[in-house]
Amino acid sequence: MSVTRRTFLTAACGWPAALVFAQDADVATALPSWNAGAATQALVEYVRTVTREGSPDFIPVPERIAVFDNDGTLWPENPLPFQAIFILDALQRKIRQQPALAENPHVKATLAGDLNALMADHGKGLFAVLALVHDGVTVDEFEQQVNDWISTAKHPRFGRRYDECVYQPMLEVLTYLRANGFKTFIVSGGGADFMRVWSERVYGIPPEQVIGSHGGAKFELRDGNPVLVKTTSTIFIDDKEGKPVGIHQLIGRRPVMCFGNSDGDKAMLEYTTINNRRASFGMIVHHTDAEREYAYDAQPKSTGKLVEALADAGKRGWVVADMKRDFKRVFPFDQ
Amino acid sequence: MSVTRRTFLTAACGWPAALVFAQDADVATALPSWNAGAATQALVEYVRTVTREGSPDFIPVPERIAVFDNDGTLWPENPLPFQAIFILDALQRKIRQQPALAENPHVKATLAGDLNALMADHGKGLFAVLALVHDGVTVDEFEQQVNDWISTAKHPRFGRRYDECVYQPMLEVLTYLRANGFKTFIVSGGGADFMRVWSERVYGIPPEQVIGSHGGAKFELRDGNPVLVKTTSTIFIDDKEGKPVGIHQLIGRRPVMCFGNSDGDKAMLEYTTINNRRASFGMIVHHTDAEREYAYDAQPKSTGKLVEALADAGKRGWVVADMKRDFKRVFPFDQ
Repeated sequence: MSVTRRTFLTAACGWPAALVFAQDADVATALPSWNAGAATQALVEYVRTVTREGSPDFIPVPERIAVFDNDGTLWPENPLPFQAIFILDALQRKIRQQPALAENPHVKATLAGDLNALMADHGKGLFAVLALVHDGVTVDEFEQQVNDWISTAKHPRFGRRYDECVYQPMLEVLTYLRANGFKTFIVSGGGADFMRVWSERVYGIPPEQVIGSHGGAKFELRDGNPVLVKTTSTIFIDDKEGKPVGIHQLIGRRPVMCFGNSDGDKAMLEYTTINNRRASFGMIVHHTDAEREYAYDAQPKSTGKLVEALADAGKRGWVVADMKRDFKRVFPFDQ
Repeated sequence: MSVTRRTFLTAACGWPAALVFAQDADVATALPSWNAGAATQALVEYVRTVTREGSPDFIPVPERIAVFDNDGTLWPENPLPFQAIFILDALQRKIRQQPALAENPHVKATLAGDLNALMADHGKGLFAVLALVHDGVTVDEFEQQVNDWISTAKHPRFGRRYDECVYQPMLEVLTYLRANGFKTFIVSGGGADFMRVWSERVYGIPPEQVIGSHGGAKFELRDGNPVLVKTTSTIFIDDKEGKPVGIHQLIGRRPVMCFGNSDGDKAMLEYTTINNRRASFGMIVHHTDAEREYAYDAQPKSTGKLVEALADAGKRGWVVADMKRDFKRVFPFDQ
């Protein structure tokens, strides 16, 4: 039985009072935006176990790799994944410069939100639109575009900059794990070049620890200056079964902790926790709070479907964090 | 004028005696296998300048990214790149299991060392042989193969395990840079999965800081266990203009130090040092010592051609380390 399973069950079955007190003290200090409960107990107990010298489950620092999905795990993915809104904004800016683009059938489908049309023929329409926004743009220009957008655009419901709409309890988990020698990585279906612009400032995660979907790039000296030009001739989708592949290609070893929120994270939860020679930990953030954020799992309007991973949570020993029950505060700006 | 250029020229023009003495003391302590000279002076002066708080060229720790080519920079690439020898050995093992393979024209060309045949038609033969050795092998099986090989195979000239044939002076540079807050990365045309098996043990470089050529992978649960199966349907070649692309995709920001030895490293030397907003440093390891190692540049028998990068070294301010002159000791096993 893995540590995950053991601690999860033990936590669910109740601790001796003294131990509960000690753990709650840790939670109160390191994870103040969480309500103490089975989820935080399992997390704190896991970290204690694997970082205690002499413990049979001790994990040396270089192997303390923790991976986090981004959309829906560290920040919301509703009403649309934020990067989709960035791409829509970029597309509309491009149409203002080249009005004829509005007649392009893929552009029309995008603006109409016609996902079926975009995904037909192996996503031909979606890739055509991605190419419109990314192809021929240098990496530096793209970084500037993302910076301009994230400094000004506001979330339609919360009225805040998107990079303010991050989950305070998860920021605390990132800090808590790093304080315990873990290296924290993002492993997201979102674009690596999009996230790296702000991941260090917002999450404390440097660009080299951000794994995401990505196109290609071409190096050239332009007027004597080195530039990397983005291309979409090849695209790697870092989602579902692509996540363990992305982890292997960028990290090159199995994580021991994995945090996700949707079926898109199931494969990396499996990769992290099944028959890992190290004690492992998996957590699913369950969106249950329509009042403070969103409530969805089986029938989401857009992304973030959570059915299979939730069904497997029990048998895999994945801890389910119920946002309504477990998050004392959702966003940093909440009172 | 970049710090690189300035320190390089100053070093070449001679220092006041007291300063030379202070620097030599540093070199003697941190870089004992180097002969003190212009190369080590430029290196030590650069590191001092960018790590001194308050210096106009100060570089914050998260941006202290140093990239190292592997073949010819950290270990030899003669008589063949070591990984080519590994692949030849693996191919011969496969032929013993399936003798009919010996009739395959690509296999024949490989065993005959007929590079022209292998590279014809966009390298069709080479990719076919790579597929023979890698396709369908799980990542764990491949790791075991590399481990078995590197624990037993010996370099034909030096009679030592390949992972003993590393450049002692460069090991000292790695340690010296890490002690000064630099994060050291390998950026090699060699395979990432090949290097990651031993990079941490031999160089102190963890797998997540190894960038190399790589194929694809496929994730699956096999008998309930997660496995990643190697594929060669897509191959990324981390060489020449591919190196800045690999750096961008895995690190996501420009390095400030770059160490290479061949024209295959020219693009990443350019990416690191031309119009970098941070003070930068480039070094070329020049193979000039036929007696202790190998001497080659313009006309190598196999890989490691060094013509264009050497011609540009002066105007770019890249420091040239002359192995015969600058390496006091070449290998750890040298007396």
